[in-house]
Amino acid sequence: MPKIVNHDERMKQIAEAMWRVILDKGMEGATVRNIAEEAGLSLGALRHYFKNQDDLLVYAMTLVRERATERIEAVAQQNMLPKDMIMAVILEIVPINEESLAEMEVWFAFMAHVKHRKHELDVPDDGIFVGAHKLIAYLNASGLLKEGLDLDMEAERLYAIIDGIAMHALFDSERLQPERVKKTLRYHINSICVD
Amino acid sequence: MPKIVNHDERMKQIAEAMWRVILDKGMEGATVRNIAEEAGLSLGALRHYFKNQDDLLVYAMTLVRERATERIEAVAQQNMLPKDMIMAVILEIVPINEESLAEMEVWFAFMAHVKHRKHELDVPDDGIFVGAHKLIAYLNASGLLKEGLDLDMEAERLYAIIDGIAMHALFDSERLQPERVKKTLRYHINSICVD
Repeated sequence: MPKIVNHDERMKQIAEAMWRVILDKGMEGATVRNIAEEAGLSLGALRHYFKNQDDLLVYAMTLVRERATERIEAVAQQNMLPKDMIMAVILEIVPINEESLAEMEVWFAFMAHVKHRKHELDVPDDGIFVGAHKLIAYLNASGLLKEGLDLDMEAERLYAIIDGIAMHALFDSERLQPERVKKTLRYHINSICVD
Repeated sequence: MPKIVNHDERMKQIAEAMWRVILDKGMEGATVRNIAEEAGLSLGALRHYFKNQDDLLVYAMTLVRERATERIEAVAQQNMLPKDMIMAVILEIVPINEESLAEMEVWFAFMAHVKHRKHELDVPDDGIFVGAHKLIAYLNASGLLKEGLDLDMEAERLYAIIDGIAMHALFDSERLQPERVKKTLRYHINSICVD
């Protein structure tokens, strides 16, 4: 009997094949043909799931986002002190291991690729802007923020720091090692919190 | 008599044609053929200046960097208060007008494109990391920094904020307008300076 493969599982397999092709060859190598080959499928079989490269692109980006969201939700359910929780959540976004480095590289490649085509594609937002606002609101609700801070500006600044550090950890990973990523983030969080 | 065109000028023209192609079609459209057409040259004439796409890529990135450096040096020669000077320098990097938005887009496209080929190409550094250290050292020398700050961490944080804001101004330009870019940067500089 032929193996029954769940439709969603197959779509995930194809998206993961796309990630591997992007990591190996960059966006310009991420043709439907190369992706089908990496996934071990015929071109026709792949087209059963995704009409074209754009469909696959949007799905693969959505999946990167979903995976990060799931990890963050798992962290949020743990029992931690507020400042530790904030650090743990940020460290699920900022790349400090092979998995998150790969995700970030794929995300950047996507972003650069779709930059001038946003009006054609339904590109998912990465959710970090809303996330940064939630983190600042959480610190504030926990009574940890220093007095006199502008919450809106703090969220904008945290958002910039998260993505800036993420980009540097990706493009300059030899200099900006995980320990220095953590030190910088902890320095920033401490700078806006009471002792 | 044929028009005499300076060799360097011609190389710049070709690099600028490459930028226009990238802005219009993205990296995947930046073929030597398309660039020659945009520059109004034959393929053979372009190859007289650049052996291949990689040569052109490295030159075009170097030129983006040089132009930003020239603007920053011009700002640095003006007579301004230290905090205003810091803001003016940062605003030559962070995109707040059409020219710097285009430069940043080209730079991001380059970075994503060369990410997995850094060992093959002599990719220029953007100089922002060193620049952030200089800005913090300058604020410190001017006696403006608050006491107790860690200069190394302040430079790392400023570097992250500059590139994070730059990226958001590029990819989310409708939300993050120039006024909000300036407000966020000023908020950060004020947060590390004495009143």
